Amino acid sequence: MTKLVTTPAKGSRDFLPRDVRQRMYVTGVIREVFESHGFAPLETPAFERLETLLGKYGEEGDQLLFKILLRGEPLVKGLRQANAYLAEPNAIVHGRSGETAPGAEPMLADLGLRYDLTVPLARVYAAHQGKLPAVFKRFQIQPVWRADTPGKGRFREFYQCDVDVVGAPSNVVEAEVAGAAAECLVRLGFKDFKLRLNHRGLLRAIVEHAGIPTALEGEAIVAVDKLDKIGAEGVERELAGRGITESSAKKLLAIISEAKTLTGLRSVLTGSERGQRAMDEIERVLDFASVTAAHPYLTFDATLARGLGYYTGCIFEIAVADLAGSLGGGGRYDGLIGMFLGKDVPACGFSLGLERILVVMEERGMYPEGLQQQLDAVLAPVEERDMKAALALCEQLRSHDLRVDLMPKAMQPGKLRKHVDDQGLGAAVWVEPGGSERASVWTKADGQTRKDQLPAAIAALLAGQRSAKP
Amino acid sequence: MTKLVTTPAKGSRDFLPRDVRQRMYVTGVIREVFESHGFAPLETPAFERLETLLGKYGEEGDQLLFKILLRGEPLVKGLRQANAYLAEPNAIVHGRSGETAPGAEPMLADLGLRYDLTVPLARVYAAHQGKLPAVFKRFQIQPVWRADTPGKGRFREFYQCDVDVVGAPSNVVEAEVAGAAAECLVRLGFKDFKLRLNHRGLLRAIVEHAGIPTALEGEAIVAVDKLDKIGAEGVERELAGRGITESSAKKLLAIISEAKTLTGLRSVLTGSERGQRAMDEIERVLDFASVTAAHPYLTFDATLARGLGYYTGCIFEIAVADLAGSLGGGGRYDGLIGMFLGKDVPACGFSLGLERILVVMEERGMYPEGLQQQLDAVLAPVEERDMKAALALCEQLRSHDLRVDLMPKAMQPGKLRKHVDDQGLGAAVWVEPGGSERASVWTKADGQTRKDQLPAAIAALLAGQRSAKP
Repeated sequence: MTKLVTTPAKGSRDFLPRDVRQRMYVTGVIREVFESHGFAPLETPAFERLETLLGKYGEEGDQLLFKILLRGEPLVKGLRQANAYLAEPNAIVHGRSGETAPGAEPMLADLGLRYDLTVPLARVYAAHQGKLPAVFKRFQIQPVWRADTPGKGRFREFYQCDVDVVGAPSNVVEAEVAGAAAECLVRLGFKDFKLRLNHRGLLRAIVEHAGIPTALEGEAIVAVDKLDKIGAEGVERELAGRGITESSAKKLLAIISEAKTLTGLRSVLTGSERGQRAMDEIERVLDFASVTAAHPYLTFDATLARGLGYYTGCIFEIAVADLAGSLGGGGRYDGLIGMFLGKDVPACGFSLGLERILVVMEERGMYPEGLQQQLDAVLAPVEERDMKAALALCEQLRSHDLRVDLMPKAMQPGKLRKHVDDQGLGAAVWVEPGGSERASVWTKADGQTRKDQLPAAIAALLAGQRSAKP
Repeated sequence: MTKLVTTPAKGSRDFLPRDVRQRMYVTGVIREVFESHGFAPLETPAFERLETLLGKYGEEGDQLLFKILLRGEPLVKGLRQANAYLAEPNAIVHGRSGETAPGAEPMLADLGLRYDLTVPLARVYAAHQGKLPAVFKRFQIQPVWRADTPGKGRFREFYQCDVDVVGAPSNVVEAEVAGAAAECLVRLGFKDFKLRLNHRGLLRAIVEHAGIPTALEGEAIVAVDKLDKIGAEGVERELAGRGITESSAKKLLAIISEAKTLTGLRSVLTGSERGQRAMDEIERVLDFASVTAAHPYLTFDATLARGLGYYTGCIFEIAVADLAGSLGGGGRYDGLIGMFLGKDVPACGFSLGLERILVVMEERGMYPEGLQQQLDAVLAPVEERDMKAALALCEQLRSHDLRVDLMPKAMQPGKLRKHVDDQGLGAAVWVEPGGSERASVWTKADGQTRKDQLPAAIAALLAGQRSAKP
């Protein structure tokens, strides 16, 4: 027999029972918090039309999309096109994967895997408008896929946990989504995270004030976003590389690094209506958030930029000291829905990254005790011919709402007890030779074996043991 | 603004809150039953290496795989190969999508979307052998993808709910998985399903007895599988089309249609050791299953064949009268794991199809009352300037474990009550102008408005209302 490769594909992971239980615990807490805040669940397909995804995540995002090969006759046509296209040297290399020739339709792929949960939300809001309330508050916990280079805590398949409010311009929404995100972390046991707040309009005002031309605004913001990682000198080099003059770069960095408080910035940006409006919004959000779970963690930070292109107003990022990168982020994006609906609709959301939350919880040992001990007992017959009696007893115990694992082979009591012990479980039950209705129970808690027990007595013993768990 | 297409891609669906709640209810019940039977949760990546998937589902399965386009430089190489390959007329058309040229590596795709949950299980068991118990009982509830032609109740993205036991040859395992599947349906409220049982070895013995050559055995079984759909005459035509002589075809159909009982078949197949062994197994499974939830629904049926190639022993199928096709099925497949592990390992499982269960439950109105009413109250200020007071009250009520939706705009009490009524919810809370800590509550149950209530009183009222729900 030839063995096949058995590792999961690059950047993807198998979640064994221990992993799944941890993941379900965390998503369960997050789901409960989101539901308690009035968000309703949404799920969207794993793949979207390629045209739905392309152009929404910037050039880099387009390249990181997993694209699904055309099937049947369209693929043959696509290959013929590709054939013609290949005649132009380097054309494909430049476009990376399945890109279109200039002016042509996509050639080899028609679908792409979900890249985030925000673009699908925008599409859904436009598609199901009649069925959804005018203000649509939804949460969504699903995997997304990016063909990124895998690294520590960085995968090609990973879960996002998003809340968004579509259709409401009020800044109370920013406080609601940030409050919900903060409460998720608090309920999971985090006490030391930082939730930073800034505003795209303020960044734009600062960039303008530094004398950077509007055309280079995006470039400047992308460079500022790296301040955390590469420091002021690094950002200055980045700005220079992006065609921004040295004096503008220095001015920009000076404003940002000195902008510790809104009051200070207010006086620097007296002439900027955009800047003043943005600061009004920041102040409103801080005021609203002061009555939410976000309050102890929330600070204004003029250096926060966030990469993604679609934000238009307030932006957030949530992080802990012992993990590079953020645990999540969000903000207001009033233009994205319009790309699908044909008219602008205000929207604001927050996305928690499940994988990073899990990494920190694992490192810090934050999972509740007993999470892995889902079974009340393991059951086996001592002799193979009593298997039916063992199965019947199992079913009786299960009918008492107990979780009982039947070993599909006869086992000696000592071996069964060892198995229970090894698996960190609480009780072993075995059918003695002869297969009467009565059986023996060993509980780990007291190390006692009780022989000749009736099913109801065993059920009561196991139920009591469960409620005594820490 | 140009509008983009907003419908989900062909064969896929958006699940709005109502849908998600129904799906979560059903998967929650199934999960609980599987856990109570000692199965542990597993999750695998959405995509697998193409080589992991190809050749496991028959030729038709290979064609229905969604394949993921190569990225970057490998795609360019693949296109060059395809280019060469296209020179041979019809070569690509024959291979459909991303197939290899004879003897060559896959050209344009390296990954495929998960097609079922069994092949990933086999890969996982081989990959993580050291970490898993020798007898691995797992359940898995995840979507799978097939590029099939969509139709009524037939989608390109759909969920399967699988239980499998790997590493145990005992027939008690067949009874366990069938019992678990039956209990899922019973707990969901199904009372009228049929669970049919047959054995691949018995089918082979019957085919042999009909004088059909071993090389055509698979063809004969595939044809017999269609008996339900196309009748005896249809199967006879199919058998003829697959190169089976008329006399053999008639003999085969005669045996199968007359084989109402095992006793009858025992005497027909006296000379077949394989047939007798298979019937021994069927009898053992029926005996074990007699103490499980499967018992009232389980019958032997010699016409059951099941399409998939990998079954080697007992096979099951579960169906209700008012739905064409099955709600699920399963069986023993002792060879599949070996393809990954390099040595044969016994395995047996059952797969429930979530989408069809949902279709029947929707048509029959089987969902519990109150499933869609997750909110305890909707809250709003009457005037915009009291929004912060409204948010603060909201947070206080949420801290009492209540689910409260904050409207992100001021609303008149009448309009808020109408909204609550329209959404089928139970209570409206509003902050009167002036924004004191006291607020007004309207409950749908008694149509009463209570003014000037403190947060604790509101919380008590809402909690009482929740526990009074049907």
